[in-house]
Amino acid sequence: MSALVRLVLPDVEELLREGSPADVARAFEKFHAADLADVMELLEDEQAATLLLGLEEPQRTAAFELLESPKRQRIAEVAGAEALAPIVVNMSHDDRADFVTNLPEAIRNSLLRLLPEEEREDVDLLTTYEEDTAGGIMTSAYVVLDPDMTVSEAIERVRAEGEQQETIYALYVVDARKWLRGVVTMRQLILSPPQALIHEIMIKDPISISVDMDQERVVKLLGRYDFVAMPVIDARGRMLGIVTHDDALDVAIEEANEDAQLMGGLEPLDDPYLATALMTMIRKRAVWLSVLFVAGLFAGTILREFEATLQRAVALIFFLPLIIASGGNSGSQSATLVIRGLAVGEVKVTDAWRIARREMASGLILGTLLGSYGIGVSILWGLDDWQRIALTVSVTLIAIVTVGSLLGSLLPLLLQRIGIDPAITSAPLVACLVDIAGILIYVLVAGAFVPLLPT
Amino acid sequence: MSALVRLVLPDVEELLREGSPADVARAFEKFHAADLADVMELLEDEQAATLLLGLEEPQRTAAFELLESPKRQRIAEVAGAEALAPIVVNMSHDDRADFVTNLPEAIRNSLLRLLPEEEREDVDLLTTYEEDTAGGIMTSAYVVLDPDMTVSEAIERVRAEGEQQETIYALYVVDARKWLRGVVTMRQLILSPPQALIHEIMIKDPISISVDMDQERVVKLLGRYDFVAMPVIDARGRMLGIVTHDDALDVAIEEANEDAQLMGGLEPLDDPYLATALMTMIRKRAVWLSVLFVAGLFAGTILREFEATLQRAVALIFFLPLIIASGGNSGSQSATLVIRGLAVGEVKVTDAWRIARREMASGLILGTLLGSYGIGVSILWGLDDWQRIALTVSVTLIAIVTVGSLLGSLLPLLLQRIGIDPAITSAPLVACLVDIAGILIYVLVAGAFVPLLPT
Repeated sequence: MSALVRLVLPDVEELLREGSPADVARAFEKFHAADLADVMELLEDEQAATLLLGLEEPQRTAAFELLESPKRQRIAEVAGAEALAPIVVNMSHDDRADFVTNLPEAIRNSLLRLLPEEEREDVDLLTTYEEDTAGGIMTSAYVVLDPDMTVSEAIERVRAEGEQQETIYALYVVDARKWLRGVVTMRQLILSPPQALIHEIMIKDPISISVDMDQERVVKLLGRYDFVAMPVIDARGRMLGIVTHDDALDVAIEEANEDAQLMGGLEPLDDPYLATALMTMIRKRAVWLSVLFVAGLFAGTILREFEATLQRAVALIFFLPLIIASGGNSGSQSATLVIRGLAVGEVKVTDAWRIARREMASGLILGTLLGSYGIGVSILWGLDDWQRIALTVSVTLIAIVTVGSLLGSLLPLLLQRIGIDPAITSAPLVACLVDIAGILIYVLVAGAFVPLLPT
Repeated sequence: MSALVRLVLPDVEELLREGSPADVARAFEKFHAADLADVMELLEDEQAATLLLGLEEPQRTAAFELLESPKRQRIAEVAGAEALAPIVVNMSHDDRADFVTNLPEAIRNSLLRLLPEEEREDVDLLTTYEEDTAGGIMTSAYVVLDPDMTVSEAIERVRAEGEQQETIYALYVVDARKWLRGVVTMRQLILSPPQALIHEIMIKDPISISVDMDQERVVKLLGRYDFVAMPVIDARGRMLGIVTHDDALDVAIEEANEDAQLMGGLEPLDDPYLATALMTMIRKRAVWLSVLFVAGLFAGTILREFEATLQRAVALIFFLPLIIASGGNSGSQSATLVIRGLAVGEVKVTDAWRIARREMASGLILGTLLGSYGIGVSILWGLDDWQRIALTVSVTLIAIVTVGSLLGSLLPLLLQRIGIDPAITSAPLVACLVDIAGILIYVLVAGAFVPLLPT
């Protein structure tokens, strides 16, 4: 897609320089909004703003919504509050709230003044919730039905109000106190007799989401029940909004990204890789590199303490990279398994004992495998007094792979238990701890066997 | 949820031992199918089968579809083909095809014989495609409209046929040769005048998915366009099926898991962590641990070659864990950024040059940061002739962080370019290569500076 977009780019630029807004609108009338957003990403901010403002509704708002947020902010600043207001009125409510919150204060204030009262209140409502909760991703645009309506009256209401709503495939039955009483799907409306009453066909006491639920749990619930949308309620049971399937898919992709970045040892980026400023990225990487450096220092300090042992058996040093790598890798394997298991709900904190037994067994078997390689290498390298070196290396490998697997699996469970996202620190933290533990085990085992070496 | 399910478990077991199928059906009539599936996961296979067969439709099929696949296979084997057939007839087409393919041959064959001809052909059709392509996740249950129908006739057709279909929110206009001509959403039907003609309101030349498209790209497209479903076509443009939003969400979660496991250095598990046999898991972990062991050996071999240098400056050994960790971590940070960027489509192979420049710059800056720490430590530790050690360590750190960042970012791009999933090998492979490169750089730099040491 992008290659094609690049091909038409010179023509687009010429048209923007020379054409009238009407020419622009006509030229792009057949484009899907997502492709228009791609074109705008590639244009200079000024040209992109010209293109945007030349488009007709609903294409204009749709394309604006699909821009990546740094580009969108820049185009907004170029276009100014006055030109923006008619687009912002049409935006989907959840996206609009995010967009307005992140604008520079001057533009945000003039923009809010230009919005009709209803839209302004809606932005206020949606921005009260944390960005990564159900409240932060919900929208307030849904159709409300009365329990005593007939099916055909309900379809009439959807006809009258549906244009403005995020979805018309799930409809909500709410009483006078705004309590959620039931859900009706469009599928049920279509498949039920026109004279049936809503309270007869609605799903009573539907599954709902609390407004402060973490967005990762929201995705899990939507994935579990395969709903098009789910209702969001406050602590008193009043309906506040809905979360829709497309937001859930976006969040699933975003969360997978965040977790991968955390597990890869860096703070998650807020924007796409190539759109992130170099210094921002360096800052996000420097934190963990520095922490891991300190861990490396500890490891070095341990080695210093055992300088005498090392000087008596220099061969032990040759195995150092291998021992560090084996411990670190088995630890990160276990950490990955448990972190992802927790993320998708396959593993719970209460499974800790089962997990510990599994990891202990895996660690011992994998450690023995690597340990036997270690013996082979000692023979192969024809080291002086290879028996004691082989013993030291293989005992260390068994211990470190077992310790690595245990630490790697139990640390994420511990973090989860005390309410910290296990992905945040687990994989790099495990690497730190296992590196230090590995060297400590190695020098202790060596300290036990090496003095037996003939000098 | 699961804690609650565990609480009711003893009562459920008693009911299953003593109650009739009708009692069972009545007792569970208010349960959501996803919760029933949870109960079945916890029961013995025989009891779970009794529970399943006691339920009424549509709850029975819905709960069966929501079971994890190992449990589902075991329950199927206990229940037998005859009891299974009426459930399988009702299953969603895509899920059914996966389920039947994975059954043991004897049951599969008797089950297929018991299915009506139409269902048997449908299973045959859907199982021809690779599991991780659009064909593997599509369903053949959708509503087809004619271009010359009116909106109210179309709604009538949905009423007549909708019960059996996966979704009624996207409807497909297909001509006599089965070519896809357009898409109409239920939203359009509801919001259009009843006498409007389908070909007037339909979206012409809709975006479609080729049947052999990788499922990861399918998710990306659905996420990009926010569709409820997308049509799947063959090479000749004939419509074969649809992929729906709930399947896309499942695939997004599954793919994120697979990528995380690959990046964590193990072959992806097919089943949840706790449901995977211990030996299967050990096998999947042993491969990479062995490969990384070999890499560790290379590193050791390099150290052996430079034994003389190391003996002249034992202090260099204290920095070894730190240097290995810094190279490995910067490499895995870069690899993570690029792998995820590729996975979500934010980064393309053609961006290689831009990425290389960014990573080169990041690497130099981060390397200089760590290098300056290295100088600090050399002073702090009060090493003999600390100036040369500090020089060696800091030059090595600058070089290794830069090389790590470059390798980490470019290797995934190379793999993608030659058609290999970059997540498959990238993170552990980067760790191997960077470990070896790190030690090589260290001994070379040391070889240049240490001979200058006074002996």
